[in-house]
Amino acid sequence: MAVYTEVTDEALAAFLDEYAIGQAVAFRGIAEGVENSNYSLRTTQGDFILTLYEKRVDPADLPWFLGLMEHLASRGITCPQPVHGRDGAALRQLAGRHAAITTFLPGVWPRRVRPEHCAPVGAALARLHLAGQDYAPTRANALGPAGWPPLLARARETLADAATPEAGSPDAATIGLCDEVQAALGATLAAWPAAGSLPAGHIHADLFPDNVFFLDGRLSGLIDFYFAATDLLAYDIAIALNAWCFEPDYAFNVTKARALLAAYAAVRPLSRAERAALPVLCRGAALRFALTRLFDWINTPPGAMVTRKDPMEYIRRLRFFLTARDEHALGL
Amino acid sequence: MAVYTEVTDEALAAFLDEYAIGQAVAFRGIAEGVENSNYSLRTTQGDFILTLYEKRVDPADLPWFLGLMEHLASRGITCPQPVHGRDGAALRQLAGRHAAITTFLPGVWPRRVRPEHCAPVGAALARLHLAGQDYAPTRANALGPAGWPPLLARARETLADAATPEAGSPDAATIGLCDEVQAALGATLAAWPAAGSLPAGHIHADLFPDNVFFLDGRLSGLIDFYFAATDLLAYDIAIALNAWCFEPDYAFNVTKARALLAAYAAVRPLSRAERAALPVLCRGAALRFALTRLFDWINTPPGAMVTRKDPMEYIRRLRFFLTARDEHALGL
Repeated sequence: MAVYTEVTDEALAAFLDEYAIGQAVAFRGIAEGVENSNYSLRTTQGDFILTLYEKRVDPADLPWFLGLMEHLASRGITCPQPVHGRDGAALRQLAGRHAAITTFLPGVWPRRVRPEHCAPVGAALARLHLAGQDYAPTRANALGPAGWPPLLARARETLADAATPEAGSPDAATIGLCDEVQAALGATLAAWPAAGSLPAGHIHADLFPDNVFFLDGRLSGLIDFYFAATDLLAYDIAIALNAWCFEPDYAFNVTKARALLAAYAAVRPLSRAERAALPVLCRGAALRFALTRLFDWINTPPGAMVTRKDPMEYIRRLRFFLTARDEHALGL
Repeated sequence: MAVYTEVTDEALAAFLDEYAIGQAVAFRGIAEGVENSNYSLRTTQGDFILTLYEKRVDPADLPWFLGLMEHLASRGITCPQPVHGRDGAALRQLAGRHAAITTFLPGVWPRRVRPEHCAPVGAALARLHLAGQDYAPTRANALGPAGWPPLLARARETLADAATPEAGSPDAATIGLCDEVQAALGATLAAWPAAGSLPAGHIHADLFPDNVFFLDGRLSGLIDFYFAATDLLAYDIAIALNAWCFEPDYAFNVTKARALLAAYAAVRPLSRAERAALPVLCRGAALRFALTRLFDWINTPPGAMVTRKDPMEYIRRLRFFLTARDEHALGL
C-alpha cells in the first residue's frame, strides 16, 4: 500500500491555494508504489497525482528528479510533469512531508506481461537514455554496486544482534540466504565493468511493469523516476530484463528478452563491451533487488503494519543469471 | 491496502466489452477500503469504480446490496450506482471474483473530523433510514448481537490452541482483552433492546469517515454499503457515534455527538425508547468493532501480508461507553 501520510481536507485546500489548478473534487489514495504516498487528485480543472515523499527519498534529490522529468518531456518522453505553483515552485511541504503535484498520465500498467509488451519497453528505455544525454546535473546511484556491500553488512549486523537461531528456523534460512548473496556479490563486483568502460548516463533504475503505462496496445508513458540516477546505461537494461522477462515460476522467457533487447538496440545500438557485460549486469540487478528486500525483511518486525516483499523472488532470478554463460543465453 | 486481486489488461478489456461505457483509459488500485479490491477506472466515456468482492462478502448478498444502492438513489440519497452491462446485469465475474462497476462519486472524505462534519452526517444517516423504508427485501445482520458471542468463542479457541503464554507477553495481554470483552458482552446482551421494541429498517452499519464524501463544505455522498443490513435504526446511530465522535486520544467529543444526534433527530425524531437505549447500543457498536478486530488480530499470523487493525481502539471506546450512565452523557 502506498499511503503512509494522511492529508486533512483543510491542509489539502490550503496546499491547492498555492496553485492555479482549482479546488479538490476527489482525492483518493493509490494502492500502488511502495516508497511514497500517492494520491489521485481531481480538481475543478483536471486530474493530477499528488505525491508526498516519504523517508526513503532524500529531499536534496527532489529537484534533480523533477528536473529530469521536465527535461525528458522536453525531449519527447511521455512522463508525469511537475505542476508549478503560483510562485513558480514545483516542490513544497504538505502534512510534514515534501510534496509535489504532477500531471495525470492516461494508461494502464500490465498486470501480466506478454511478449508484445517487451519491445515497446525496450524502445522506450533506449529513448529515455538518449533523451537524458543533455541533462547536465548528475545523481550518484546510492543503490548501485558501491551501495550493495554496506546493505548486506547492515542486514547481517541485525541478524547477529538476534539470538542464535535454531537449525531449520526462518532466521537460520535467512542467514543461509545472506551467505548465498555474499558469495554472488563478491564474484559480481569482481567482474563489474570498470568506470568509463561502458556508456553512462541517466537511468530510470526501476522500470518495472507498474511504472509503464499502455493504452490501446501502445506504450503511453513512463512513471516513478524516484530511483533515477546516473549510472551505466546497460545496467538499466539489466534491471528491465529482471523486471519484464521472468515468468511467475521464475523461468527466464528468452522470447521476451529478445524482443526487449532488439527494440532497445534498434534505437540505441549496444557496443560489443555492453553486450559482453550484460550477464554480470543482470546478476548485479538481481542482487540489488534481493539486497534491498533482504534488508527490509530482516529489519521489519513481523508485527509491523507494512507489506514485506519476499527477497527470494530476486534470489531465484540471481540463480538463473549465475547459470547464464554469455549474453546469447540472455537473448542477445 | 485494498487490492487483493489483480486484473490483467486482457481480462479488463474483455470485461468492459460486456458494458457500453467505452475502453479503459486509466486503471489504478485504490488504497482505501479493507474488505474488497477497489479500482479507480477511467474509460473513454467517464469515471467509474470497479469493485472485486473478496471472501468476506457473501455473493448471495450482492444483489441485495446493489438493489439497496439503486433504491436509495431513487429516493434522493447520493451513493454509487451499479452500472448495468449490455445484458442488463450489474453483477458478473472478473479474475475469479464477483465484480461490479459503479458510478464515480465526487468528494473527499474527511481525514480529520471536525464538529461541522457531524451534523451533515447525522442528517444523512436519518435520510438514509427514511429512504430505505420501502425497500422490501431484508438482510439479517451477521455482525449484529447474535453474531458477537460466536466471534469471541472462535477467537478464544485459536488462543487456546496456542501454547500457554508467558505472563506479560502479547498473547497473555490478548487473553486479558478477551476476558474484558466477554464481561462487557454479557452485560450488553442482557440489556439489549428486545426485538420489536425499537424501530428497525435498513442500516449502513459502517458509516465511518472514509465512507462519507464532502465537497465545498457539504456532504456530497455516501459509499460502501457492503455491511448494510436490516437492524435497529438507532444501532446505526450508535455506530456513527463510535466512528465520528472520538478524538485521537479516545476522548469522547460531546459537541460532535450533540451535532450528529440533533441533526439526525431533526430529520427522523427519536422515540423515548430509542433515546434510553442509546448507551447500550453504543456499547454494542464498540464491541462489534472490537470483536472483529480482535478476531482478525488473533487469526492473522504476524508475518501475513495484511494490515491488522488494533482492537484497542474500540476497547477504549467501549470503556468510555461503560462509564456513560445515560443518554445525556452521550449528547442527547
